[in-house]
Amino acid sequence: MKSIGVGVIGTGYMGKAHSVALKAVGTVFETALKPVCEMICATSEAGAAEKAAAYGFKRSTADWRVLVADPAVEAVIIASPQRTHRDIALAAIAADKPVFCEKPLGETLQDSEVMTAAAEAAGVVNMVGFNYIRTPASQLARQIIEAGEIGRLVHVRAEHTEDFLADPETPANWRTREASSGALGDLSPHIINAVLRLIGPIESLVADIQTVHETRPGPDGPEKVENDDQGHFLCRFANGAMGSLTFSRVASGRKMGYAYEIYGTKGALRFDQEDQNALWLCDSDAAPGREGYRKILTGPEHPDYQAFCLGPGHGTGYNDQIIIEARDFLKAIETGRPRWPTFRDGCDVNRVVAAVARSNQTRNWVTVGDLHA
Amino acid sequence: MKSIGVGVIGTGYMGKAHSVALKAVGTVFETALKPVCEMICATSEAGAAEKAAAYGFKRSTADWRVLVADPAVEAVIIASPQRTHRDIALAAIAADKPVFCEKPLGETLQDSEVMTAAAEAAGVVNMVGFNYIRTPASQLARQIIEAGEIGRLVHVRAEHTEDFLADPETPANWRTREASSGALGDLSPHIINAVLRLIGPIESLVADIQTVHETRPGPDGPEKVENDDQGHFLCRFANGAMGSLTFSRVASGRKMGYAYEIYGTKGALRFDQEDQNALWLCDSDAAPGREGYRKILTGPEHPDYQAFCLGPGHGTGYNDQIIIEARDFLKAIETGRPRWPTFRDGCDVNRVVAAVARSNQTRNWVTVGDLHA
Amino acid sequence: MKSIGVGVIGTGYMGKAHSVALKAVGTVFETALKPVCEMICATSEAGAAEKAAAYGFKRSTADWRVLVADPAVEAVIIASPQRTHRDIALAAIAADKPVFCEKPLGETLQDSEVMTAAAEAAGVVNMVGFNYIRTPASQLARQIIEAGEIGRLVHVRAEHTEDFLADPETPANWRTREASSGALGDLSPHIINAVLRLIGPIESLVADIQTVHETRPGPDGPEKVENDDQGHFLCRFANGAMGSLTFSRVASGRKMGYAYEIYGTKGALRFDQEDQNALWLCDSDAAPGREGYRKILTGPEHPDYQAFCLGPGHGTGYNDQIIIEARDFLKAIETGRPRWPTFRDGCDVNRVVAAVARSNQTRNWVTVGDLHA
Amino acid sequence: MKSIGVGVIGTGYMGKAHSVALKAVGTVFETALKPVCEMICATSEAGAAEKAAAYGFKRSTADWRVLVADPAVEAVIIASPQRTHRDIALAAIAADKPVFCEKPLGETLQDSEVMTAAAEAAGVVNMVGFNYIRTPASQLARQIIEAGEIGRLVHVRAEHTEDFLADPETPANWRTREASSGALGDLSPHIINAVLRLIGPIESLVADIQTVHETRPGPDGPEKVENDDQGHFLCRFANGAMGSLTFSRVASGRKMGYAYEIYGTKGALRFDQEDQNALWLCDSDAAPGREGYRKILTGPEHPDYQAFCLGPGHGTGYNDQIIIEARDFLKAIETGRPRWPTFRDGCDVNRVVAAVARSNQTRNWVTVGDLHA
Repeated sequence: MKSIGVGVIGTGYMGKAHSVALKAVGTVFETALKPVCEMICATSEAGAAEKAAAYGFKRSTADWRVLVADPAVEAVIIASPQRTHRDIALAAIAADKPVFCEKPLGETLQDSEVMTAAAEAAGVVNMVGFNYIRTPASQLARQIIEAGEIGRLVHVRAEHTEDFLADPETPANWRTREASSGALGDLSPHIINAVLRLIGPIESLVADIQTVHETRPGPDGPEKVENDDQGHFLCRFANGAMGSLTFSRVASGRKMGYAYEIYGTKGALRFDQEDQNALWLCDSDAAPGREGYRKILTGPEHPDYQAFCLGPGHGTGYNDQIIIEARDFLKAIETGRPRWPTFRDGCDVNRVVAAVARSNQTRNWVTVGDLHA
Repeated sequence: MKSIGVGVIGTGYMGKAHSVALKAVGTVFETALKPVCEMICATSEAGAAEKAAAYGFKRSTADWRVLVADPAVEAVIIASPQRTHRDIALAAIAADKPVFCEKPLGETLQDSEVMTAAAEAAGVVNMVGFNYIRTPASQLARQIIEAGEIGRLVHVRAEHTEDFLADPETPANWRTREASSGALGDLSPHIINAVLRLIGPIESLVADIQTVHETRPGPDGPEKVENDDQGHFLCRFANGAMGSLTFSRVASGRKMGYAYEIYGTKGALRFDQEDQNALWLCDSDAAPGREGYRKILTGPEHPDYQAFCLGPGHGTGYNDQIIIEARDFLKAIETGRPRWPTFRDGCDVNRVVAAVARSNQTRNWVTVGDLHA
Repeated sequence: MKSIGVGVIGTGYMGKAHSVALKAVGTVFETALKPVCEMICATSEAGAAEKAAAYGFKRSTADWRVLVADPAVEAVIIASPQRTHRDIALAAIAADKPVFCEKPLGETLQDSEVMTAAAEAAGVVNMVGFNYIRTPASQLARQIIEAGEIGRLVHVRAEHTEDFLADPETPANWRTREASSGALGDLSPHIINAVLRLIGPIESLVADIQTVHETRPGPDGPEKVENDDQGHFLCRFANGAMGSLTFSRVASGRKMGYAYEIYGTKGALRFDQEDQNALWLCDSDAAPGREGYRKILTGPEHPDYQAFCLGPGHGTGYNDQIIIEARDFLKAIETGRPRWPTFRDGCDVNRVVAAVARSNQTRNWVTVGDLHA
Repeated sequence: MKSIGVGVIGTGYMGKAHSVALKAVGTVFETALKPVCEMICATSEAGAAEKAAAYGFKRSTADWRVLVADPAVEAVIIASPQRTHRDIALAAIAADKPVFCEKPLGETLQDSEVMTAAAEAAGVVNMVGFNYIRTPASQLARQIIEAGEIGRLVHVRAEHTEDFLADPETPANWRTREASSGALGDLSPHIINAVLRLIGPIESLVADIQTVHETRPGPDGPEKVENDDQGHFLCRFANGAMGSLTFSRVASGRKMGYAYEIYGTKGALRFDQEDQNALWLCDSDAAPGREGYRKILTGPEHPDYQAFCLGPGHGTGYNDQIIIEARDFLKAIETGRPRWPTFRDGCDVNRVVAAVARSNQTRNWVTVGDLHA
């Protein structure tokens, strides 16, 4: 048994989630490497100290460079705003420290490529945070596909839709301003990552994007919304399958609409994150008159479930996905072998996002591989 | 009370469905005009006579011209193969007889335009058979949208997917040969009709179509499949909403995948024909913490339900949709006023289908209104 | 091909449903015996004449004795209030005419026993109307059980719940007065019939019944409710299985809550009439990690579906159940062989209902077979 | 901020779950009192040491008396077999240490009464582990009921059903021997606790219990099964509502069938632990034609959700329920005020369990309050 000091940059939504995961992962997975919550970084010294106490970290700082340089910090988790990812990651890589970066990797495809090149050149363990694809159900989906249980893939429909900006009266905020991503930059990466993982590389696509609510109430009257509310694209995968993907922050009633339907020549799969403990499988083994979609409840026989609970159907939740990420990050550090998804995988997602934006501008099909920063 | 003699051309799937509807409609809806099953037309005299006895028609013929010309046949229902629609419809119009034509209207956009022009010039009652949109649930969807209950429409996802050719080992048959339509011609019209009815006209679209199984077992070895298995398109509606539609005959596990999700600024709707007696509504009236999709079971307070049954949740089925069509056709004849969907509405569907084919060829966005035969 | 004149007594909910079924059944099932709507009986001459015109009957009467005696009426359908069932049925039997009686058979167990004895002594074709058990899905449930696909049965939970009297402000009406049945007499027979058909005879039971709303608004102030609103019972079946059944007219939100869950040693079944075109099957054939409930959509390979529609998942509805009943009644007449459920089967249901009432009074377990009028 | 040393007795399923919860609770809820994993107790020294390392405890022991007596252990969690609960709890109480005991409280009603009396006499903080009722969804159910949103309660149907012994070929094991509880003792307490919490006290009940598989494969041939496989009971609550409850370990296909349906005069609720992040609500506020069950996804506006995640629909899981328990235990210690459910609440559950056993023996209705050890 060995311990490793970890520093977390960011104390918001994801900073807290990673802190919880660091506390729990050693017990849930009984990992060889036990993480220690060494230092946390917020935007002010007082705020950082408060969060260190609240989350159970030994020390705190308002300067991420201090955290990255601290000798007791042996690994870095970046959960700060997207625009800061590049500089922090490059500093951690320069310091030869394993680095975990929240999605989306870089603010631009160029940033992501620079980060990826640096990490690979340095041989530093690197990972990106795509948590949703780590549920036991989505891992099971991948197993089923890889085992050929639904045959050759022919079509996927997928979406990441939420409704937090569905109401036109919701005031303008940081999310609706240029410095932030719209639905394309913020939400689509999760589901693009999912289809890349489950189906394979995307060759080409054609997209359409829209700002549904062009203005929102601002402090001084109507304020222009500076990024997109929704969009969708058609694509062709390298393996010949067709895809249709949607992303939205104005999909009324959708709270966690990370969902996919995958059709193959021998069966089909359906999943919706709003019921994350079930995977629907239609296979071709059923007797005549007995065919249909079967609701498989996740349980100990499915990937990574048993560490959480011995009872099938008892269920895992959002934070458990982050605990699985933490286990993989620790395992990569322990073994020195990268674990999916690496910066390169994150970069692949950014490339598809860039292709979507390009296609929306050109109103044409775009070959994804042609896109480089 | 008055009776009207009806002739049905075609004794297959839809010919039988219309025969059942003619028998039941007068009692279900207690219509003023009671239809009489006067004559039925099949491809052989013997077959026609057999079906007349089986379905309860007075007379039979193997020549549709005889049926159209018969003085006791006062209205004509065309349920024969698509390539025959044009000639029969033109003859019925020339004979000044009300005509109901199964979908899709004409084999080509040009045929449909000719049929529409003829019917309108003659002032003959004309209708097209889009039965699925007539369920109480889908009629309720339209009421909800028109009443503004879900606000301004922003996105629709819709599909008509089935799996009757999902298995690559299913032999080649008439459906896979050039004379027949693929999924685009056969299945997409239903769901295109639905979105035109629920959302409004489509302005432009970009499409992708695929023949998934390029050959199938034929009588003399592998036989080339001559039409498409699946496809999808993105579109913009005249009212600004975005749409994403899919059609497939290879969607494993989908039996009657006529489904839509419609998002508005104040709520959303979901429907799946596989559970045709439920409409899911998310509205914005719920108290905080009480929001969600509500499963509305169709009942007597919803359009056209009460004639079938006084109990909510007791449910209507496939044939009941055809009975509703029959009621509308009789009502149009009785009043001399056309009832939706007329040939013109069927023609609008054909135009979108043609635009999808065009976009697939040109690999570009297509403006639907530009398409004419 | 032969025709048979049918008389229908009653023009309410069920009278209309049977009229629709008589019109459609010959075409749907292409029966050898084609029914003719000969005469209909209502409570007034004018009302009967109006309904004859509306429903398409040749003649009408306000006197059921006239109908039963009419030589052109060759078979009788009783869809009048329960208290009239006995006398009409006995008259039809005396006239040696096949008789179909709506459920519940007699007003009391004694009436039912008298009716059954008379019908059997006369050798007249006799049937009772339990329509819900005739859906393709519930017929499939029986096939699955009989084939042993879910093994030896160990537990069933079932209910017939609706909410038409859930609101305490709903005024008193004929349903809440002594002359009528409460939930026990009105609703429980359907689901008792279902479990007798699917599981087998009930040996013993213990019950509890309640009038939830003791008074309701009446014309002159609060009026006492004279029958029960809800109840439930535990039972043991002859085959050793345990059962738990509920009936209610005050189950808020339940519209057609005719539902069952049946557990066996090798699998389980679930059904809910509110989604009548699906049967959920959990079998033990699934590979490890692939177990779960499968949603089977009814289709042409399931009992009685194909006559309605060739497409799976297209769905049947309430009236289609009545058409299946009509087919069975015609078949019984044609062949002279009784078809389930006969008066004897209806009597068995009455006996369980009587046992429930007895157990509620005595507050003890009751042996069903001990009950006789 | 203050820390408190905690000792955990038991290293199985629940021992691990509590260990994970102790690690995470301080960060998830940012509690004032931060627990320290001080000592863990297993059945052997080696096993205990191994688990201490695996779960991250400072020290270990094979003697629970050592743990209870250790001065650094300031609170005790009992997650050992049921037969040990009494002695450990009495020792902890004698040592004046807060004690949390897994359900069911005592092996017999008498044990539970002794434990309760001791804890109350000593004024020691005491709690019982009924985790399922702590999901945000079930807490929300209670809020809705208490606010009167579904009116006066009239009926509840509830179950705790699983299928781990459904297969008759599953060999005999500790669960099927006399020393252990059957489905009544093991599974029913969870759902009895739920209805006591949601509906209120049970006044009387009538029950039926069954051992479905009387023998199972044993090491030396068929071995007698010494406890029950399934059972159910009808009951009346003090507030007049009726209840029907089922418990089973042989319910094929049910993995975590902790489920309830609660009907009131103004609405209804439905919940199934297999989809623990949703609560179905039917309220009476819907406009005519818009009524139905609404699927509410749990989110930050619901009890205890926000500490886990800021996004609605993102979901909590099994371990999160244990974390909520840990928070409540810490809060009770911090404030000196008991938090539901105390030993007294656990004792109430035992009393109902005893009444079920009694009614099964006597074949009569039993008044719950009459039962005392």
